[in-house]
Amino acid sequence: MRLPTLKWTGDALELIDQTLLPGELVIERCEKVEEVHEAIRRLVVRGAPAIGVAAAYGVLLAARAAGNVSPEEVRNHVARAADYLETARPTAVNLSWAVRRMVRAAEEKGPSAQELYGRLAREAEAIADEDRHANRRMGKFGAALLRDGATVLTHCNAGALATVDYGTALGVVYAAAEEGKNISVYVDETRPLLQGARLTAWELMQAGVPATLICDDAAATVMAQGRVDCVLVGADRVAANGDVANKIGTLNLAILARHFLVPFYVAAPLSSVDFDTASGADVPVEERTYEEVTGFGGVRTAPPGVGVSNPAFDVTPARLVDAIITEAGVAKPPLGPALAALKDETDRSAV
Amino acid sequence: MRLPTLKWTGDALELIDQTLLPGELVIERCEKVEEVHEAIRRLVVRGAPAIGVAAAYGVLLAARAAGNVSPEEVRNHVARAADYLETARPTAVNLSWAVRRMVRAAEEKGPSAQELYGRLAREAEAIADEDRHANRRMGKFGAALLRDGATVLTHCNAGALATVDYGTALGVVYAAAEEGKNISVYVDETRPLLQGARLTAWELMQAGVPATLICDDAAATVMAQGRVDCVLVGADRVAANGDVANKIGTLNLAILARHFLVPFYVAAPLSSVDFDTASGADVPVEERTYEEVTGFGGVRTAPPGVGVSNPAFDVTPARLVDAIITEAGVAKPPLGPALAALKDETDRSAV
Repeated sequence: MRLPTLKWTGDALELIDQTLLPGELVIERCEKVEEVHEAIRRLVVRGAPAIGVAAAYGVLLAARAAGNVSPEEVRNHVARAADYLETARPTAVNLSWAVRRMVRAAEEKGPSAQELYGRLAREAEAIADEDRHANRRMGKFGAALLRDGATVLTHCNAGALATVDYGTALGVVYAAAEEGKNISVYVDETRPLLQGARLTAWELMQAGVPATLICDDAAATVMAQGRVDCVLVGADRVAANGDVANKIGTLNLAILARHFLVPFYVAAPLSSVDFDTASGADVPVEERTYEEVTGFGGVRTAPPGVGVSNPAFDVTPARLVDAIITEAGVAKPPLGPALAALKDETDRSAV
Repeated sequence: MRLPTLKWTGDALELIDQTLLPGELVIERCEKVEEVHEAIRRLVVRGAPAIGVAAAYGVLLAARAAGNVSPEEVRNHVARAADYLETARPTAVNLSWAVRRMVRAAEEKGPSAQELYGRLAREAEAIADEDRHANRRMGKFGAALLRDGATVLTHCNAGALATVDYGTALGVVYAAAEEGKNISVYVDETRPLLQGARLTAWELMQAGVPATLICDDAAATVMAQGRVDCVLVGADRVAANGDVANKIGTLNLAILARHFLVPFYVAAPLSSVDFDTASGADVPVEERTYEEVTGFGGVRTAPPGVGVSNPAFDVTPARLVDAIITEAGVAKPPLGPALAALKDETDRSAV
C-alpha cells in the first residue's frame, strides 16, 4: 500500500521526505508553520498541487499555534502565515492560490476563535479533497487522448508525489492503464534534481506501469526513432494565454515534440491556471542554488568557482501546447479562451 | 602549464585519467595494448581525435611487445592489435581510421623488424602531429564565424582533452579569443557522464575563457532569452552526407537551435569524416551501461531494477547543420559535396 504524499493528523502535517526517495522512505512531521515553509523550500514536498495543500495546512498550523486568542488575532496569524508561506517558492501558483483561500475562509466576522479554526480546518481539507477529485477527473479526460499501446514521454514528477494522490500527468497514465490500455512511459531523469529518476520511475514501478529511464539528452533520440506517441507533463503555473511554466527542460521537450510532430500535452488543475498573469513572460522563475548543478548526489562534478545559471523552471509558449487537460475538461487551442471557458463553467456549476 | 592529454614517452603512453577530472589530476601509464584498450573503453581517454591517437600508440605498443621477431610477425601483431583496438568503442571513426593507418605503415615488405618499428613510431607521431596541426587550422577557419562578443553554447567536451592539444570546437573558441575577440561560453553539463561540467568547464577556466555551466535542460531557456549566438560542438563521426554522430543530446541542441534560428556549427577534422558511411543511419551507436544513468559517483539515483535506455551518441541530420569546420576549410550546405571537395583538395595537395 502506498503511503500518502501528505497527511493531516489533527495536530501535525506529515510529509514523505521526497529529497530522500527512492533510497529512503522517511516521514517528516511538521508541527509549526515554519517547518512547513522549510519543507516546501527544501523540496521535502514539491509539485504544484502538493505545495498548495501543504501550505494550506501550514496556515492551519499557524492558526492552531495562536492558541486562546481573539478571532481578530487568529485572522492576523492567518494573514501573516499566508504572506510568509508565499515566500517559500515563487513559481507554482497553487501555493498562493491555496493560502489565499485560507485567508478568505477566516474573513467573515462573527465566529469565535474556535469556530474560525474549525472553518480553516475544513477549508484545508476541502483543498486536499478537491485535489484528489481533480486528479481523478483529469485522469479520465486525459486518458481519452491515449490510445491502447501508447508510449508517453514525461518529465520531472507530476504524479501522486506531486499531489495529494494519483497525480496530474501520471494520473492520466494511471487512468488509461485502469481502463485496460497498455501504456508505457519514457521517464526523463530531469536534472538537476532528478525527480524523474528518483520519483517518477519509483512511482511507475510501484504502480506496475512499464517505465524506461533516459537521460534528458536522449529525448530527441527516442522521438526521432518514432518511439514516443505523446509528451505529457504537469505545470507549475499556466498563464491566462495558455503559456506553461514547468520544470526546466519542459520547453526543450515541447520544441522537440513539435519538430517530430509528436503531440505535447499538459495536465494541470484549474488551481494551477493563473488568470491574473497574462502570459508566461510575467511568471516569476525561481533561480536555485548553483550547488544543484555543480554536484550530484553529494559528489562534486564541476570545478570550484565555475559560473552557473540554474533556473528551476522554463516557460513553454501556448503555441507549442496541443492540449491542457484540466478537471473540467480538455482545453485545446486557442488555449486562452478555452481555459477561460472551462473556468467559467466550473464557477457557474459551483454557484 | 597545462599537462598534455596524452604523451608518448618512448616506451609507454601516458594519459590524463579523464574519469577523475576535475577532482583529481592523475596520469595513467599504459605499457601494453590491453591497457590502451581498457583506457579507451573506460573513457580514461575520450574524444574522437584523442581516441584515434591513443589507439595508434596502442598498435605501437603491440609492435614493441612483439620483441625480436620476424617482420612478418610484427605485421601480424600490428594487424591483431588493430582489430582488437577497434572493438574498444564503436562510434568514433577516428579509432578505426588511425589503426588502419598503422596497419598500412607496416605493410611494405622488405624492412627489418626494427625498421618496421621505426616506421610505426613515426606514423603514430605523424597522426598526433597532424591532429595538433588540424586543430589549429580548424581554430583559424572557425574563428571567422564568431563575432567579437559572441556567446557560444557547447556540449560535452570537444576541447584539448578530446584531442592531442587545443581542441576542435573549443579550439575555435580559443582561436577567436587569441585573435582578441571576447567570447563567452555556455557549457552544457552533458549527462550522463558530465563531460561538460567536469572537463569543458575546467578547460575553459584554465584558459581564462568566461564559462557558465548549465543543465542540459536549460539550453532551450538560454536560447529563448536570446543569449546564444551559435551552438558549436565536435563530432564522433560525420557521414558522407554530412549527418553528424556526436554525444547524446547534440540532436536536441540542433533542433532547439533551428527553432530559435541560432546557427549550429560542428568542428571536426577530416579524420572524423567517414566517406564510406553514406548517412547517419549507418553509424553504429554505442549503448552504454544502465549504471551511468541510475547513479553518479557511486550514489544511486534511481530505483533498483528500473529499465534504462542509454545511447551514448545521437545523429543530427545534415539539414540541421549550418557548417562543418574542418582543417581544410568550412563546409557549408549541401554538406556532402562540400566535404568531398575539401577531402579531394587535401588529398591532391598531399600528393
